[in-house]
Amino acid sequence: MAKDFSTREENYSKWYNDIVQRAGLAENSAVRGCMVIKPYGYAIWEKMQGALDKMFKDTGHSNAYFPIFIPKSFFSKEAAHVEGFAKECAVVTHYRLKNSPDGGIVVDETAKLEEELIIRPTSETIIWDTYRNWIQSYRDLPILVNQWANVVRWEMRTRMFLRTAEFLWQEGHTAHATEQEALEETHQMLNVYADFAENFMALPVLKGTKSVNERFAGALETFCIEALMQDGKALQAGTSHFLGQNFAKAFDVKFANDKGTLDYVWATSWGVSTRLIGALIMAHSDDHGLVLPPKLAPTQVVIIPIYKNEEQCQSVCAKARELKERLERKGLLVKLDDRDTHKPGWKFNEYEFKGVPVRIAIGPRDIQNETVEIARRDTLEKNTYQMADLENKVAHLLDAIQENMFQKALSFRENNTHKADTWKEFQDIIANKGGFVSAHWDGSAETEQQIKEATKATIRCIPLDAAKEEGRCVFSGKPSSQRVVFAQAY
Amino acid sequence: MAKDFSTREENYSKWYNDIVQRAGLAENSAVRGCMVIKPYGYAIWEKMQGALDKMFKDTGHSNAYFPIFIPKSFFSKEAAHVEGFAKECAVVTHYRLKNSPDGGIVVDETAKLEEELIIRPTSETIIWDTYRNWIQSYRDLPILVNQWANVVRWEMRTRMFLRTAEFLWQEGHTAHATEQEALEETHQMLNVYADFAENFMALPVLKGTKSVNERFAGALETFCIEALMQDGKALQAGTSHFLGQNFAKAFDVKFANDKGTLDYVWATSWGVSTRLIGALIMAHSDDHGLVLPPKLAPTQVVIIPIYKNEEQCQSVCAKARELKERLERKGLLVKLDDRDTHKPGWKFNEYEFKGVPVRIAIGPRDIQNETVEIARRDTLEKNTYQMADLENKVAHLLDAIQENMFQKALSFRENNTHKADTWKEFQDIIANKGGFVSAHWDGSAETEQQIKEATKATIRCIPLDAAKEEGRCVFSGKPSSQRVVFAQAY
Repeated sequence: MAKDFSTREENYSKWYNDIVQRAGLAENSAVRGCMVIKPYGYAIWEKMQGALDKMFKDTGHSNAYFPIFIPKSFFSKEAAHVEGFAKECAVVTHYRLKNSPDGGIVVDETAKLEEELIIRPTSETIIWDTYRNWIQSYRDLPILVNQWANVVRWEMRTRMFLRTAEFLWQEGHTAHATEQEALEETHQMLNVYADFAENFMALPVLKGTKSVNERFAGALETFCIEALMQDGKALQAGTSHFLGQNFAKAFDVKFANDKGTLDYVWATSWGVSTRLIGALIMAHSDDHGLVLPPKLAPTQVVIIPIYKNEEQCQSVCAKARELKERLERKGLLVKLDDRDTHKPGWKFNEYEFKGVPVRIAIGPRDIQNETVEIARRDTLEKNTYQMADLENKVAHLLDAIQENMFQKALSFRENNTHKADTWKEFQDIIANKGGFVSAHWDGSAETEQQIKEATKATIRCIPLDAAKEEGRCVFSGKPSSQRVVFAQAY
Repeated sequence: MAKDFSTREENYSKWYNDIVQRAGLAENSAVRGCMVIKPYGYAIWEKMQGALDKMFKDTGHSNAYFPIFIPKSFFSKEAAHVEGFAKECAVVTHYRLKNSPDGGIVVDETAKLEEELIIRPTSETIIWDTYRNWIQSYRDLPILVNQWANVVRWEMRTRMFLRTAEFLWQEGHTAHATEQEALEETHQMLNVYADFAENFMALPVLKGTKSVNERFAGALETFCIEALMQDGKALQAGTSHFLGQNFAKAFDVKFANDKGTLDYVWATSWGVSTRLIGALIMAHSDDHGLVLPPKLAPTQVVIIPIYKNEEQCQSVCAKARELKERLERKGLLVKLDDRDTHKPGWKFNEYEFKGVPVRIAIGPRDIQNETVEIARRDTLEKNTYQMADLENKVAHLLDAIQENMFQKALSFRENNTHKADTWKEFQDIIANKGGFVSAHWDGSAETEQQIKEATKATIRCIPLDAAKEEGRCVFSGKPSSQRVVFAQAY
């Protein structure tokens, strides 16, 4: 481990930033709070997009695109929504610049918009204004649409991937004839997100609902997936909102049911963002750098030839190319780094730091023995493999790494989930252990707020699978019928 | 043809808008000049993205993402660039709303940005500000990066897909150690665009350079592909810019070459946008609606079962499902429309209007005869096919449609390209025939401007493959050494 790179123990926050920057994932830009997503970070996002987009389409959704601008007046139409987003909106007021007498350029004050435009922090308002024209009768329903887009929320404290003023995401917006169908959609998409988190990101998640305090502005119910990071803090990894008829009422979207009666349309919305890349880093990476699950790694296998002279180079590199082709025919994403501008040791460190799941080294002795040396990134183990049938061995190894990463993260979460039955226990766990705290809560927003003020912990979710259990609120002592999950969170 | 739908002859502009709206491609939004790209239109864009993205990656490029905001001061750094874009910039001046006493919301004047932010009309400035930190020596070059993004140009007269305030595009931005390498990149990407236009869009294009008047603001040379639409107007379908060292100088981006000497970096940028969907419509569609080339059709084949009763339905639909599976195993994109809410005739019209390249109808008699009826969208021909080996027959038919569409567009362009050797001829062609006019030009911006004022025709390009030919400028009579291509343009 290079000296200029922090360990998790030394400085978790610096460790995170070091990984983001040194692995070439992202960097801060000249614009406050906005990041540049660099090619390697964007390649991970493309892998995420590819997997999610297929899951959305397999469940009947289509993509579309709505304007980035939202007329200011649209925001006022749903009261809770404007309350939730008005404080962090980027506002476009003019549409022209002009030369200034001093040689620079200035805003042309004559080109002022009659109504200011908000850059979308989320698109419910502009989309429901559009859906009004798409929906007349039950035959026009359901509408199952998703959008891949950039959004802007003017956050004051930003952190790459986790919280940035502009970020990339997808937002699904569906319209239904019945409450039940909308609720089923909300659940379905929550399950899609949990499936993606667990099977692609190797990230175990809790599924639950949010308390009123943490609910999406405009939703009747917010469902979420919550993951635990290595510093014991929680991270909300995705949300699926049951919006009821709130936006249909705000934008007057009615449909005639099969009896000809007019009713408001039922709605859902759901989203995940580039924040997932932050979750991926914080859940799996170690003091040697990034660790990527094979299913989301832009490069799954790197092959590094080792040679001392031109003669060795020829035979070793020819064999390395042959192996690359064999692995690629198996469908694996392989990079052969045969550059002679860098030494093997430098390359080993580089790909280890970038989290490539499998590294294959091949030298002159390997050619003689028909072997290769394989290092797996998750455990850092090295083993010698016979070249015969290597493509299948490597494919199995990648599966094993994917599974091991999930199991490791699951064990971590289990070891860092504690029950608290008294306020003292609760405070002690939050202060000294971190992680998820399973505790009784009296169901009131006031209690949640007081717990937050005392410990910085919030209710991450009311788990969907929680057993009914009579108990007393850890803070107020009032009766409670099930435990909820608290944690400090990103 | 339905009565509420215009023919090209009757009203070309209305015909275009009718296709965009009735085929479900896009619609105007509540925000002036911004469109909503509807699922079917977006599906075409996704097909375009998929093909282009693969071509970019096959030529060594990676995707990345840069902020949507550009600090106002960045614009002043490249003089030509600000001149070209300042008049159409959306400007963010504030970052918060607040409740107003009358119950609405207003901009919070206390949340005013110190420096205004421009919503990117193109990203050269923010990207070259970033590249400064990425480039120290020749070893850091080339940088071959592309971005898929939304951009905003505050156009006064907008038209769906062709010219909208916000549009989607890709912008490649590359950095090179030598002028020659940058020029080669510029040519390479022009050829990628021409290849895409001709082989995917079935759209023949002229390759050439722009005159100074039409050059990208900040480029030393702009290369373009130009296509001809059915109304005889030209459409610029893609551009590839050689930027020289202009942006490197504006943003102080230097590199040490292999001798240790510092020099400014050489740049290119290149882009195509959702405008291509407008080109696709205008080049191929007819008075029966959209006509899509098979390689970009979200649905290549639609199967429509025809039956009169439940018993017929069972056997016909079972066979239709079997055919669908056979075609899908061949890799074709197939939709089976077995809804009983719509009659076959309605479905025929619907998919014809949406431009699905091949329609297969199958009824009880077909089951007996082991046949199907196939209609091809490009020629509207219908033929009976034996079911045996149908997957290969349909695959060949799709290839034939793709080729026929290109040849038809090519013939159209050839029939609508005219030489003009006198000013009278020139004016006559522009006024009465339209299309491309090949004429001598004296090379001066003044002459080009005067021709534009007289005829609304501009120089679309100076063709790369034009033969050297001594002549006299069609307007000024001054000597000229090659013909250039004029047209009225979108």
